[in-house]
Amino acid sequence: MNTTARHLVVEYHGCDRELLNDKKQMERLMRLAAEKARATVVGAIFHAYSPQGVSGVVVVEESHFSIHTWPEYGYAAVDCYTCGDCEPEAAHEFLKEQLRAMETELMILNRGQNSPGPSIKLAAHRINELCVAQS
Amino acid sequence: MNTTARHLVVEYHGCDRELLNDKKQMERLMRLAAEKARATVVGAIFHAYSPQGVSGVVVVEESHFSIHTWPEYGYAAVDCYTCGDCEPEAAHEFLKEQLRAMETELMILNRGQNSPGPSIKLAAHRINELCVAQS
Repeated sequence: MNTTARHLVVEYHGCDRELLNDKKQMERLMRLAAEKARATVVGAIFHAYSPQGVSGVVVVEESHFSIHTWPEYGYAAVDCYTCGDCEPEAAHEFLKEQLRAMETELMILNRGQNSPGPSIKLAAHRINELCVAQS
Repeated sequence: MNTTARHLVVEYHGCDRELLNDKKQMERLMRLAAEKARATVVGAIFHAYSPQGVSGVVVVEESHFSIHTWPEYGYAAVDCYTCGDCEPEAAHEFLKEQLRAMETELMILNRGQNSPGPSIKLAAHRINELCVAQS
């Protein structure tokens, strides 16, 4: 398989704090996010911390989707790393809405050996995208 | 827990191709890499692809270590994402040696809400670090 990949490094601020502390919901949302990106899930591992917080990763045929949450700050740090014809932006849009984020920050890295120059390229960095009020 | 984290985005070129295709060895090395970084492993998931390649993630109390390998190109893409007092650079140095990489590329991101400005900061990007011959 071609090594070309897109890696979305995303931070969500002002999220639903209760949701961020719910391991089952985090796994459900991250699996759905992977599906939204048109990735194929091959496994997942999620862990709840004491007193709070969740870490989890969904491994997909096209790489991985990870999340780490700090419910006490309403904050989640996500990585959507996909090769092939996936659409990691769709996962980001889905998570932004589902986590009820007030603000997001998104860095897009292009990775892989298939184009000249560095194998990690900073493609975009969108800081403090305010989210519209959700119904 | 404080949200401050360091995220090493690393690519290894010219690695040992046979090793990159060995799922058991990849899990063993990634668990050891996490330990070298002084992180505490809470779980791992590794998957072997057909006809070749391995994806895997070690979830640690301090976040995660992931690897995706393309044995046919001698190439591996790694993320070492750690909060707290970990030393992800130690994991990188360990993996560089163990994978017998000829060349590496390293991007360091500082993540979290604990300092002014963007919550994802590009701290360093070291392109094409040639590795010394290993014994």
